[in-house]
Amino acid sequence: MANQNVLIIGGGVAGIEAAKGIADLGYKAILVEKRDRLGGNPDEQQYSVLTPDRRDASEALSDMMAPILDNENVDLMYNTIVTGASGSVGNFKVKAVSMGKEVEIEAGAVIVATGFSHFDPGRETQKYGYYEHDDVLTLTDAEKLLKEHKFVRPSNGEVPKRICFIQCVGSRDRQIGNEYCSKVCCGISSQQAIEVREQVPDCKVYIFYIDMRMYGYWENEIYWPAQEEFKVNYIKGIATEIVKKGDRLLVKGEDTTLRRPMEVEMDMVILAVGMEPSEGTKKMAEYFGLKQNKYNFIETIGGPLDTVSTTVPGVYAAGACTGPADLEDTVSAAGLAAMKALGSIRRNGNA
Amino acid sequence: MANQNVLIIGGGVAGIEAAKGIADLGYKAILVEKRDRLGGNPDEQQYSVLTPDRRDASEALSDMMAPILDNENVDLMYNTIVTGASGSVGNFKVKAVSMGKEVEIEAGAVIVATGFSHFDPGRETQKYGYYEHDDVLTLTDAEKLLKEHKFVRPSNGEVPKRICFIQCVGSRDRQIGNEYCSKVCCGISSQQAIEVREQVPDCKVYIFYIDMRMYGYWENEIYWPAQEEFKVNYIKGIATEIVKKGDRLLVKGEDTTLRRPMEVEMDMVILAVGMEPSEGTKKMAEYFGLKQNKYNFIETIGGPLDTVSTTVPGVYAAGACTGPADLEDTVSAAGLAAMKALGSIRRNGNA
Repeated sequence: MANQNVLIIGGGVAGIEAAKGIADLGYKAILVEKRDRLGGNPDEQQYSVLTPDRRDASEALSDMMAPILDNENVDLMYNTIVTGASGSVGNFKVKAVSMGKEVEIEAGAVIVATGFSHFDPGRETQKYGYYEHDDVLTLTDAEKLLKEHKFVRPSNGEVPKRICFIQCVGSRDRQIGNEYCSKVCCGISSQQAIEVREQVPDCKVYIFYIDMRMYGYWENEIYWPAQEEFKVNYIKGIATEIVKKGDRLLVKGEDTTLRRPMEVEMDMVILAVGMEPSEGTKKMAEYFGLKQNKYNFIETIGGPLDTVSTTVPGVYAAGACTGPADLEDTVSAAGLAAMKALGSIRRNGNA
Repeated sequence: MANQNVLIIGGGVAGIEAAKGIADLGYKAILVEKRDRLGGNPDEQQYSVLTPDRRDASEALSDMMAPILDNENVDLMYNTIVTGASGSVGNFKVKAVSMGKEVEIEAGAVIVATGFSHFDPGRETQKYGYYEHDDVLTLTDAEKLLKEHKFVRPSNGEVPKRICFIQCVGSRDRQIGNEYCSKVCCGISSQQAIEVREQVPDCKVYIFYIDMRMYGYWENEIYWPAQEEFKVNYIKGIATEIVKKGDRLLVKGEDTTLRRPMEVEMDMVILAVGMEPSEGTKKMAEYFGLKQNKYNFIETIGGPLDTVSTTVPGVYAAGACTGPADLEDTVSAAGLAAMKALGSIRRNGNA
């Protein structure tokens, strides 16, 4: 007889949504999370607001996770790290260290929801001087400042008069091996640009980009308002170097529309860092024997018609552990993974 | 007691996936489809291959729908058009005309999966002369030619030597009221460009674009190979007019990188038409009282953290009936909709 429980690894957006779905259908979800709280990257990295609806991130996440807290169908295991796995669909045995103790978790199916890490702009590329210049930030650094409503220059505490975003840091970059586009950075940068203009109305904001990938409704919900209402300046151009000039930053590069070199002084520069598989994602692939793609994200099978099945029956992957994903992708995939996980248990047991 | 069945309206990719999920969990799906077969736009419009994996579309769809054909948990109702609805979650009563006869369908929850229509390039914009020039095609026209391996000029049956795609036809266009980006056209155009280069190796292929929105893996799976392996020429530019010149087409516009007017002769021009809500989508919104956005797609509630719930409890919307969606979006959303539909029935009945 197949074990009827679904183990969900990772308590971010994908994991929360999957647990909710499984519990709603009367099955048991066991959700393991390495931290002592749910919420994944948006919580850990202290996102200010969500993209594209600009709702307060903490509030939106709280509402989202409420149904699985104190839910008799959801076992939440915090401070728990998966360390190994055996078995197959219907009868997985997963080893973990939970609150410092070794435990074994049994489940009929598994949903891996271990997400992504932000690209480290110090890795293999020092051209932007992230670790040299205090006023060079990443999107996640900027989120924290915006969340606290303290958008000031880290170097001197002053309110910036002129800032820019540089797109595609760690994405679309063959030299560092990340040829893919990280999908969300154009939208998130634009959203942050709007927030900067709201919090610091006198600050001029520039975005240097290759293509603005404001797909679907992001075009009308973020891109148009950013330009028209919030006067964000979009410049098709590539920044190649950031150096110090006095107490400001000099961004060197090329304006590809005007086809000429550009050198612009900025008070702060925000690097739109892309997505890479998290450590947890790589480890789960190893423990469960899941095929990974060349970027080490978990490979899904079935092309565009199956976004969650892995090479191992009974193990599904949802959200950014399979590659760059926005919140919509993640939530939708979690639903599909929950459905398929329960389906696999029913087919392989006598439920 | 709540009715335990889920009514799915539309037998395209979203409807098929939702039905599969519901059946897999042991519930009954009633799938109504206006045509006499499943497959939605990819089948009706005779897509050649899917984007991005370039698998034969007919074959992929056949495999996808196989599990719901002759499935005791799925009632397939072909040639059926929904004409009205009443009731609420747990007890919807839906009127339809099925095979010419009036019927009433009862269901506990409903999934609207009525998809999109391709933008008609004759509507409100005649600048591209779609209805005047035989050699001006849409993406769907081109799909059919590629599927049949007969990629020739409609005007004279000759193999083209030089063709171009024009992006954003009916999208990102405030004048016609479609400010949104249709999301998939960059990828599909690039995929077709590759296919043209394979089928007609001597044909030069150009793509005129505003931004190439090759998000996520489309960047490395389509955009890099299109340029490097298949020598597709991407030109950032805007085409403003197409006129006849001898037996060829003269495309007038502006090369925005070189900042100069451009006039290029082409044998065929393919318009990358965007997505609009289908008639069925607009009608279902009306019958069920679902809020629509300003473009008449069905509005989902909950921002990026809920891609399928509508303003009416128990009615979910999946896929391109909610806005521009690629196949991945559609399949994932269908899974989430199936899960939420079953959850709503369980919460509102005594299942």
